[in-house]
Amino acid sequence: MTHDTLDGLAIHTVTTRSWSAGECIKHYAAAGIPAITFWRDVLDGRNPEAIGRQARDAGLGVVSVARGGFFFGSDWEDDNKLAVDQTAALGAPVLVLVCGADPALPLEESRKIITERIGMLLGYAQRRNVLLAIEPLHPMYADTRSAINTIQQAHDVCDALDSPANLGLALDVYHTWWDPALEAGIRKTGATNRLFAFHVCDWKVPTTDLLNDRGLMGEGCIPIRKIRGWVEESGFQGFNEVEIFSHTYWAQDPHAYLEKIKEAYKKHV
Amino acid sequence: MTHDTLDGLAIHTVTTRSWSAGECIKHYAAAGIPAITFWRDVLDGRNPEAIGRQARDAGLGVVSVARGGFFFGSDWEDDNKLAVDQTAALGAPVLVLVCGADPALPLEESRKIITERIGMLLGYAQRRNVLLAIEPLHPMYADTRSAINTIQQAHDVCDALDSPANLGLALDVYHTWWDPALEAGIRKTGATNRLFAFHVCDWKVPTTDLLNDRGLMGEGCIPIRKIRGWVEESGFQGFNEVEIFSHTYWAQDPHAYLEKIKEAYKKHV
Repeated sequence: MTHDTLDGLAIHTVTTRSWSAGECIKHYAAAGIPAITFWRDVLDGRNPEAIGRQARDAGLGVVSVARGGFFFGSDWEDDNKLAVDQTAALGAPVLVLVCGADPALPLEESRKIITERIGMLLGYAQRRNVLLAIEPLHPMYADTRSAINTIQQAHDVCDALDSPANLGLALDVYHTWWDPALEAGIRKTGATNRLFAFHVCDWKVPTTDLLNDRGLMGEGCIPIRKIRGWVEESGFQGFNEVEIFSHTYWAQDPHAYLEKIKEAYKKHV
Repeated sequence: MTHDTLDGLAIHTVTTRSWSAGECIKHYAAAGIPAITFWRDVLDGRNPEAIGRQARDAGLGVVSVARGGFFFGSDWEDDNKLAVDQTAALGAPVLVLVCGADPALPLEESRKIITERIGMLLGYAQRRNVLLAIEPLHPMYADTRSAINTIQQAHDVCDALDSPANLGLALDVYHTWWDPALEAGIRKTGATNRLFAFHVCDWKVPTTDLLNDRGLMGEGCIPIRKIRGWVEESGFQGFNEVEIFSHTYWAQDPHAYLEKIKEAYKKHV
């Protein structure tokens, strides 16, 4: 992959969250973005099959759906089956799992429950040809968003379930850049053929909000290109998905923002 | 240590940051708090020897000084020597180090620099009978506040410097509760006689600010008593220091807040 084209670029619909699915498809395609990941909010109440067709007809690759998981809600099973169904109908190969955590439980107990519940979902996803990608989340989200906070912990879940072929990892530089075992964990995805998705953005210095102050690539301190190098050396050939939650960027004109994303992608990913 | 008394309780002056050093001493002593840790802002421009004497005369133990470190500023050496001098003059045994990070460098490079600069400070501190305690900071502070983000990384610095007797760790449950290697890291402090300080507070669910939304013990999801158990099993006999940065609590009457801290300490530490 060269670094001066848009090859390999995908964008998550949440990045331009004022747009509907149809608007994202239309404007991403017009801007020359190669591929798209759908967040479920833009699929709600819509026909995912038609949306998937619309995206492919516009020339966009359909990368993945974000997100299933949150295994501690009372409706976790129905909701995750719905997410798998949406992913399959959309024609996306991957469903990203943000696993959740029960703050009343020790983290290791939450991880056991996550492992069991992913295990219960595997057959359902397999029959629909959907890959499940566990996304480790930054430790600042360990209270409720995910008890899986390191790449090794995501590997541990896969290993505990005997490495099913349709279970792997989604790696986001934002969540994992600080992890001293990141490079080793990425190498292990190569050995296990287990990396299903790669997300990029940046960690702003300073960061002013725990959720919605992510930076555009190059704006922060994450060594994105180095991490991308490890990811590609591990054999990953998928997209580099731009997923940015940002009150700052959401307040700007999304068309101008798409251009900034393209420039940042060429320079810093 | 029993859990229904104030035995072992210390409070950081920053916890009641509207109070001067003198006010903290007076009001902590009146409230029956056994001990105090001084932040340097309340020492600025004051005579630390007189403040230390005043605290001991009021019956307070003088636990430590927070904080030295920040090894990436141009004045790091002078500032850290000043911090050591203040600690020695105050009669506190321990200076806590928040090590800093250079966001332009890879984290492992920042850690090398931290290790070198702590090495350069050790003799100075030793001659003044000051213990240096490396505080691992939560990974959400890896950009600028500290490249030491796990208890193991703090051990690594000590090991790399051949385990000087006056170099050890300050462990804060807020920074480390998520770490899957926490228990093992605490056990290693026992084997190496390396735990110099133990800080408590809680992680609120949800947390709304990266810096100043810490919770009172019992308000959040940190298994404080379990971690304290590991710490005591490792042989630690020092104080449990309450260090809470909180816009919420700073806005309240500090006298009423001290009473809340005492109740929370008895119930949850």
